[in-house]
Amino acid sequence: MTKRIPLALVGVGKIARDQHIPSIAGGADFELAAAVSRHGKVDGVDNFENFDAFLTARPDVKVVSLCTPPEVRFDMAKKAIAAGRDVLMEKPPATTLGEAEALSALAAEAGVTLFATWHSRFALGVEPARLWLSDKTIKTVSIVWKEDVRRWHPGQAWIWEPGGFGVFDPGINALSILTAVVPGPILVERSTLEFPENKKQPIAASIAMRTVDGAPVSAEFDWRQEGPQTWDITIETDQGLLRLSKGGSELYIGDALHTAGPDREYAGIYERFGALIRARESDTDYQPLRLVADSFLCGERKVVASFED
Amino acid sequence: MTKRIPLALVGVGKIARDQHIPSIAGGADFELAAAVSRHGKVDGVDNFENFDAFLTARPDVKVVSLCTPPEVRFDMAKKAIAAGRDVLMEKPPATTLGEAEALSALAAEAGVTLFATWHSRFALGVEPARLWLSDKTIKTVSIVWKEDVRRWHPGQAWIWEPGGFGVFDPGINALSILTAVVPGPILVERSTLEFPENKKQPIAASIAMRTVDGAPVSAEFDWRQEGPQTWDITIETDQGLLRLSKGGSELYIGDALHTAGPDREYAGIYERFGALIRARESDTDYQPLRLVADSFLCGERKVVASFED
Repeated sequence: MTKRIPLALVGVGKIARDQHIPSIAGGADFELAAAVSRHGKVDGVDNFENFDAFLTARPDVKVVSLCTPPEVRFDMAKKAIAAGRDVLMEKPPATTLGEAEALSALAAEAGVTLFATWHSRFALGVEPARLWLSDKTIKTVSIVWKEDVRRWHPGQAWIWEPGGFGVFDPGINALSILTAVVPGPILVERSTLEFPENKKQPIAASIAMRTVDGAPVSAEFDWRQEGPQTWDITIETDQGLLRLSKGGSELYIGDALHTAGPDREYAGIYERFGALIRARESDTDYQPLRLVADSFLCGERKVVASFED
Repeated sequence: MTKRIPLALVGVGKIARDQHIPSIAGGADFELAAAVSRHGKVDGVDNFENFDAFLTARPDVKVVSLCTPPEVRFDMAKKAIAAGRDVLMEKPPATTLGEAEALSALAAEAGVTLFATWHSRFALGVEPARLWLSDKTIKTVSIVWKEDVRRWHPGQAWIWEPGGFGVFDPGINALSILTAVVPGPILVERSTLEFPENKKQPIAASIAMRTVDGAPVSAEFDWRQEGPQTWDITIETDQGLLRLSKGGSELYIGDALHTAGPDREYAGIYERFGALIRARESDTDYQPLRLVADSFLCGERKVVASFED
């Protein structure tokens, strides 16, 4: 086995503890050498409260994984790139397309690897869905992504602030799968955004899109879903129906279950990051963020009932 | 003199009559051979009501200029590119970034010239401003773009619809100058969008941006300005002040008038289009549209008084 690459985790919150730390430990490519966080600490590694202090103190740690909320990601990524580090970014990569594209340009100039991750693209059903669709003609796509914000985002006030994207925070996961499995660009035609009277970001959205060949693509996002949660993408083709269920982790072709199994999205992310670093390549596909920006740009705003979370 | 290239004008409305037709006639590169419009006709040329009919009937007209409202631009541009025509697009190039980027990809694939125009970039002061700024350090940028929508957009209901961009329709002109004269990407930090109670698009916007080096850039857009109209960009540098006034047509360095003269924005557009066609190149810089999309994406919405236009 080759030597593991020392990596620093930046932002030690829920997603870092639930997903990143176990996936780094369970993979073959990286070892957690440092953590940077104002609040959290990771046992057994070098802990820093300040990102600049980390960059100065640990020049040997050439790889950083940014798991902070998106509003501080740009400045950290910019500093990391300037310091010659390879960078992995949690989703969404930035709060604006401008920031995201500027980071790509900076990384290319500095010759470092930049990986803008979309964890849902590593759900088990996604790659077989892409392969199955590659020789079919798509007739319609229907996305239904409805979950309970109180259950999945307790205490995360930033999701309701400008730049937090509201219901597009989970919705962008669906859009990341959509753009991975359907060939060619997806275009937003119109959208309706529902803003609770007391919130700055939408709690629900209805988006009409189309493939570049004109097939209709609809998406229904809602954060008010109690009881069973729905993360489904249904694609009608000239050769039958495909359905990605449970966030992409189950793939059905027609009525038959084609692929399913235990979640390994973040394991897949770190395997891909290792491969990108070895190949000295970047992977920065901002299509999901562009679809969100276009949905806001041409969206019609509706004010709905106040919401307490 | 070389032979003029036959060109078709698509969308015979106010901007076509006020600007495109005289600029085509006054330039050296093109001759107006056909017009396509459901309503308007141009004397002395072949008139069509239907774009498909034009494409079939006039294969000899290899160049089209699209002056329709943006919501129908994508389909026409796509058809024109597929038919091997070189395409000029009025601003904004499309209603979404997705459409704009898809057109660039299609044009590259088809090997035709695509020119996404920003007429304000051809205002007299813009190029000398870019040159003067190129060896200065920018400290701050302040944009004030305030005009009377009733005066400039009488009867244009589409500007208030989703995809019409509201006050960003003139504001994008300022952003097109900004991105032409300031080197490197401009990033949106936050914005406030004022929506009249009875309108679907903002009537005013306040945008906080920064250069990639961190210099603050502010923009104030307002469509409620009666009396004198304001289209100013003021840039403070380490070597003094630059001001572009009257939409870029007057350039001041310090207090001294540096460049001014009669408007020839659209003459410049057609000269550039001719040069692009001869070089078999495209010019599609979507930064101004990206700044609008990012302003909507991370914007805070405020409802203001109803507005009757």
